[in-house]
Amino acid sequence: MTEHTGLLVAIFIAFAAAKLGGELGARFGGVALVGEIAAGAIIGPHVLGWIHEDPILVGLSELGVIVLLFAVGLETEFSALRRVGLRGGIVGTVGIVLPFIAGAGLMWMTGHTTPQALFVGTALVATSVGITARVLGDLGLIGEKESLIILAAAVVDDVLGLLVLAAVTSLGSGALDVASIAILVAETIVFFGVLLTVGRIGIRRHGTKVRYLRLPHGALSAALVLCLGLGALAGIIGLAAIVGAFMAGLLVAELSDELELKRDLEPIRAFLVPFFFVMTGARFDFAALLEPSALALGVAMTILAIVTKLIGCGLAMYGTSLAAAVRVGVGMVPRGEVGLVVASLGLAAGIINAPLYGAVLMMVAVTTLVAPVLLGPAFRFRAGAQAA
Amino acid sequence: MTEHTGLLVAIFIAFAAAKLGGELGARFGGVALVGEIAAGAIIGPHVLGWIHEDPILVGLSELGVIVLLFAVGLETEFSALRRVGLRGGIVGTVGIVLPFIAGAGLMWMTGHTTPQALFVGTALVATSVGITARVLGDLGLIGEKESLIILAAAVVDDVLGLLVLAAVTSLGSGALDVASIAILVAETIVFFGVLLTVGRIGIRRHGTKVRYLRLPHGALSAALVLCLGLGALAGIIGLAAIVGAFMAGLLVAELSDELELKRDLEPIRAFLVPFFFVMTGARFDFAALLEPSALALGVAMTILAIVTKLIGCGLAMYGTSLAAAVRVGVGMVPRGEVGLVVASLGLAAGIINAPLYGAVLMMVAVTTLVAPVLLGPAFRFRAGAQAA
Repeated sequence: MTEHTGLLVAIFIAFAAAKLGGELGARFGGVALVGEIAAGAIIGPHVLGWIHEDPILVGLSELGVIVLLFAVGLETEFSALRRVGLRGGIVGTVGIVLPFIAGAGLMWMTGHTTPQALFVGTALVATSVGITARVLGDLGLIGEKESLIILAAAVVDDVLGLLVLAAVTSLGSGALDVASIAILVAETIVFFGVLLTVGRIGIRRHGTKVRYLRLPHGALSAALVLCLGLGALAGIIGLAAIVGAFMAGLLVAELSDELELKRDLEPIRAFLVPFFFVMTGARFDFAALLEPSALALGVAMTILAIVTKLIGCGLAMYGTSLAAAVRVGVGMVPRGEVGLVVASLGLAAGIINAPLYGAVLMMVAVTTLVAPVLLGPAFRFRAGAQAA
Repeated sequence: MTEHTGLLVAIFIAFAAAKLGGELGARFGGVALVGEIAAGAIIGPHVLGWIHEDPILVGLSELGVIVLLFAVGLETEFSALRRVGLRGGIVGTVGIVLPFIAGAGLMWMTGHTTPQALFVGTALVATSVGITARVLGDLGLIGEKESLIILAAAVVDDVLGLLVLAAVTSLGSGALDVASIAILVAETIVFFGVLLTVGRIGIRRHGTKVRYLRLPHGALSAALVLCLGLGALAGIIGLAAIVGAFMAGLLVAELSDELELKRDLEPIRAFLVPFFFVMTGARFDFAALLEPSALALGVAMTILAIVTKLIGCGLAMYGTSLAAAVRVGVGMVPRGEVGLVVASLGLAAGIINAPLYGAVLMMVAVTTLVAPVLLGPAFRFRAGAQAA
């Protein structure tokens, strides 16, 4: 077997296992994501050992998460944020403060380091826009007013979460000196500021000109160049590459329908993103989690993740009905891709260790699984009373 | 700059250069492919040195050519072959014999080794279905009878060319002993035989059941699993992986419209295939080709590539009109992906050296460039006389 064949065999095993796991996940729990991660855990080095940290699998996994965050950005529209306005912003903002404090606090209280506390806090922050949107859509609830608030708030906490991640990433890698913090904050502000002003206006005015490209799939190609370019740029200035990819998606979101970007990105996403989830699972060390203290940490983290979003986002709905508060609170519970990315980055940087990684994965899996189960009842709760 | 960022920067440079080159190629010569290769040559290690043989770029390039051949297979329908029947088969078969003999003969006469002669002969064999189809489509000639014959013949010579490649690949890697040849021939026959009988019937009967998959993009995912799986299997038994990918495409081609496979594969192709062409160009060593003997070889190879297809395929049209013979002969000239794949495989195996690789690339570039220029006039040639 030549080297090239070995490479292709590894790609085949990872992809086929992800899709099989995804299908089983979709069939028996409703969430393909969890099945893909479980498949990775089973074929990974800690159990069967069929796949390892091959450069090509790591590369495809990186590319997968870049594409995933680009797609999340693409699904995010400024106008949607405006429609539910202030309330979504408040829910999103409050919804990240409580989980961050609770997560970081739990780490500090259990004797972990400050970088570990910051990473775990960050991993608890972001509600998954992707999972939330899919669950609400599957349940036929996407038109409800609370659904719009949930989606807007999820977007706000994604953006804030990525900002927190950008700060935590560079803090975690160096000493906590004031100068480097100041430089990073300045860089972050300039990066976001330039993109959201000059970048946004430029793309609004000239973006549709990609139609004049003679290249087949010119619009998609240009969007992917922007995605990879901003990802690389974000990486170079010390932010996470996914922050750049998300911003690229956000910038071209308004042109998405016109240029059929979302439709064209879907197949690429279906091909590449599973590599990220499989590799996420492959790094999952069951043995590390079975240690009583790690398991206890995972359970505590999961409970905090659920309770802080329920209370934080519920309270942020103050002034509306209890029913609305319950719906929004439950809708904000599922974490997903961003939490996993934070954990993976922390693991790669040597800050997060195997038991912590396992605990975060447990938190993501449970919060993701409870969403489809609880959202239906939450929307039926007092629905009659309200209508009466 | 972290390792992950460096990886992403390399991916961005390769992709952006490919798309820029492709756009310039499409704009000024009509062929994006040639621009992508040229871009790779410029940013590659022999000129600017912006990209190198990184594992991730090599991996993406491998995946790109797998996807490309899968797409070529997907565009190939058994029923289309039947429609123009015998004539297409004859044109395709004759059209590979002459170029192979001429190419291998040129190598032997100029003192090259037998494996080199076999590889170069194989590189000259296959007309590019992709390029031919795109040029005929662009010129609005896809409905003409001769166009159908060209496409059918191109498919036949692709299949035969890949068979020759399969034989040559394993011959080139080992000694030319009778036992290993017999084993390879047997394996090839079993591989194609099983796929075209049991595989084809199975997919025809049960293929549409992928609709019952709950996974998002279930049909596309299943097709990609088949593509990667047959590619890996072909590699394991000693055939080229692209042969397996092509067969996977061929097997699901009939379901393509129903399951929207072709449409869904297009964006993946637009993302991954450029990596193959960029890396193809990056291996192009101008200096090696500027040596007079290498340049002479390239020119001789190019002339043989054009003349043998013109004469071979033209003669195979015996019994029809001269106009039809000219059209089909010209339409069969462009080589493309298969020729490049053969050259790349030979280079990777250490059989093809830099001057030979350069000569093959020159042949592919010239035959590809002349197609759009000559096909229009060829179809206008005696068009009036025939109509009268």
